[in-house]
Amino acid sequence: MNKCFNLEKRSKNSKARAGKLILPHGEVETPIFMPVGTTGTIKACTWEQIKELDYKLILGNTYHLYLRPGKEVLDHFNGLHNFTTWDRNILTDSGGFQVFSLSDFRKVTDEGVIFASVIDGSKHYFTPESVIQFENTIGSDIMMPLDECTPIPIDYDIAKKAMNRTFNWLIRSKKEWEEKVLNSNKMHYLFGIIQGNRYFDLRKLSAIKTTELDLPGYAIGGLSVGEDKQTMYDIIEFLDDLIPLEKPRYLMGVGKPEDILEAVARGVDMLDCIFPTRAGRNGSFFTKYGQKSIKNMSYKFSEQPLDSECNCYACKNFTSSYIRHLFRSGEITAMTLLSIHNLAFLKRLTENIRVAILEDRFEVFKNDFLNSYHQKESEY
Amino acid sequence: MNKCFNLEKRSKNSKARAGKLILPHGEVETPIFMPVGTTGTIKACTWEQIKELDYKLILGNTYHLYLRPGKEVLDHFNGLHNFTTWDRNILTDSGGFQVFSLSDFRKVTDEGVIFASVIDGSKHYFTPESVIQFENTIGSDIMMPLDECTPIPIDYDIAKKAMNRTFNWLIRSKKEWEEKVLNSNKMHYLFGIIQGNRYFDLRKLSAIKTTELDLPGYAIGGLSVGEDKQTMYDIIEFLDDLIPLEKPRYLMGVGKPEDILEAVARGVDMLDCIFPTRAGRNGSFFTKYGQKSIKNMSYKFSEQPLDSECNCYACKNFTSSYIRHLFRSGEITAMTLLSIHNLAFLKRLTENIRVAILEDRFEVFKNDFLNSYHQKESEY
Repeated sequence: MNKCFNLEKRSKNSKARAGKLILPHGEVETPIFMPVGTTGTIKACTWEQIKELDYKLILGNTYHLYLRPGKEVLDHFNGLHNFTTWDRNILTDSGGFQVFSLSDFRKVTDEGVIFASVIDGSKHYFTPESVIQFENTIGSDIMMPLDECTPIPIDYDIAKKAMNRTFNWLIRSKKEWEEKVLNSNKMHYLFGIIQGNRYFDLRKLSAIKTTELDLPGYAIGGLSVGEDKQTMYDIIEFLDDLIPLEKPRYLMGVGKPEDILEAVARGVDMLDCIFPTRAGRNGSFFTKYGQKSIKNMSYKFSEQPLDSECNCYACKNFTSSYIRHLFRSGEITAMTLLSIHNLAFLKRLTENIRVAILEDRFEVFKNDFLNSYHQKESEY
Repeated sequence: MNKCFNLEKRSKNSKARAGKLILPHGEVETPIFMPVGTTGTIKACTWEQIKELDYKLILGNTYHLYLRPGKEVLDHFNGLHNFTTWDRNILTDSGGFQVFSLSDFRKVTDEGVIFASVIDGSKHYFTPESVIQFENTIGSDIMMPLDECTPIPIDYDIAKKAMNRTFNWLIRSKKEWEEKVLNSNKMHYLFGIIQGNRYFDLRKLSAIKTTELDLPGYAIGGLSVGEDKQTMYDIIEFLDDLIPLEKPRYLMGVGKPEDILEAVARGVDMLDCIFPTRAGRNGSFFTKYGQKSIKNMSYKFSEQPLDSECNCYACKNFTSSYIRHLFRSGEITAMTLLSIHNLAFLKRLTENIRVAILEDRFEVFKNDFLNSYHQKESEY
């Protein structure tokens, strides 16, 4: 009950890996990007559209789902899958990150964390145990334990304390998971989260202690929280050797195309981020030649799709000119089309990454992609 | 070139009619409700979703499309059908109503109207001729001529002057249509608009003069602008005898379920309104038992669809509880689902109306529907 991953292939010239997650709601090939369905939907999309994109594993946010619709409703419907009708896999974060980033008020003790709701300021209490219980109510296929996430930069002592607390909470989370989830024969997996901020010795200690618990998978938390990109890449690379090869590695909250490639090159199997859908709602979209803004005048008369290599609903059917017009007119439909495209782009990217790894040409693929993605507009 | 309608059946016990519009982008059975696609999309929906609802004729707003994307872009793409990829029929209003309702500044002369853009305050000039030319650029299947729309109540003299001006503009519109549209062998139809405010003698005069022009169809304009419902129904009923039987009658800007039934009972074939999609975006939805608000506590645990008789994507797949949760969470997806449902409800309503007319049981159908629709929540 601690195995949900088959490592299929390691890249010859990098740490990149291809594998398969075997989860309660179906198998998922890795590397995989996971769209974020905060409150039980991918923003501005329908499940029909998400399924057409062939996504098989999405994120739910424990913090948001706990506040709304809440335990009563999710209990009534026997969990989030049944409530939302999403019948594929769901990974839930623990709410730790939102408690620290969204709530105006919070008080952390070794026991747990009291926080004010982002909706109405009401006070709530999370403990490692209560979070696992709520994720059990959700019916998460992969559960993340409550952790303490610190911003970068921060003092060593604070980072160390948070790292230790995260580990102690993980021990309690694991106990609760074994008693409440495993003992009822539910096949829902708990991952451990490695913290330690930007301090390599803390990251190392966190990784060693966390992986000793022999959990189904491990996450790298506390990145993309203020550090520069090279620091993030260095920490990921540093951790690669410290996490058992046969376990899946999940980089939390990261999902720009260039970051996906750099993370996969350093041994990451899973990533999630709100960025592609938020960027879409704000008029930004991914192309082979980098991230573009649909507001740009150059699309005024454009008969081209957003991305000529894309096969998504938006690109198959509409010109950039039309989508630009809808966006400028404040039409919600533009947000839907741009979100679909960005998710399609990342799906195709991870599929292509996987094939490149399996065919031992990942490094070439990565360099080609990044060269094209970072070139100046004038060069193409 | 003045015929786009076949009258198939007149109801035995009312003025209700069933017929068929034969238009450049396909046939459309009547009575028909037309969703409003203001700027070239039905708000919060994709064309895929609208086609799944089987709509074959939608509205575009000349005023909005003139301001954005504008003539240059629509010329570049050879019209709105090609620009948007909507390959079914489009009726365009003339912009008259928006000039009078949206623009902060306007100056009307017999020649035309100068108005300030609702977007940026820039000044623009519409004449009957320029509106027809722009609708020709759009490629509207049915074109409405520039009219002067007055609020209710208003003084008789002002109403009379606006009615006469509307008629004089119609003569110029018809000339422009014959020269620019018919002479290039385009099968796009011009309707006349009957004005006259709440004054029956003005309505009669407007109807007689307008219908003498022998146009492909006639619209009843200037209703749903402040009058009580009975006044609106009385004016529609009064006009029934004044419009040639064989021509389609279009009631502009009306589209609540009860109004559709009352209008059809008085001889109307076509209606449009922003209400169903706007209501959806605001959390309201139609059911057999009246209009409901998804915000209502009673849906908190509801396992029922919005409407148990509805077969739309929202009702086939989701509970009211889930849609309520999405709406309360501010999710765009809720607006999409409620818009789809409301459009599905009106599509089914007009289909059922048509069958009832063809089977000579429209009056019974209407009474049954309205009895159910207006009953108190507690009664079912």
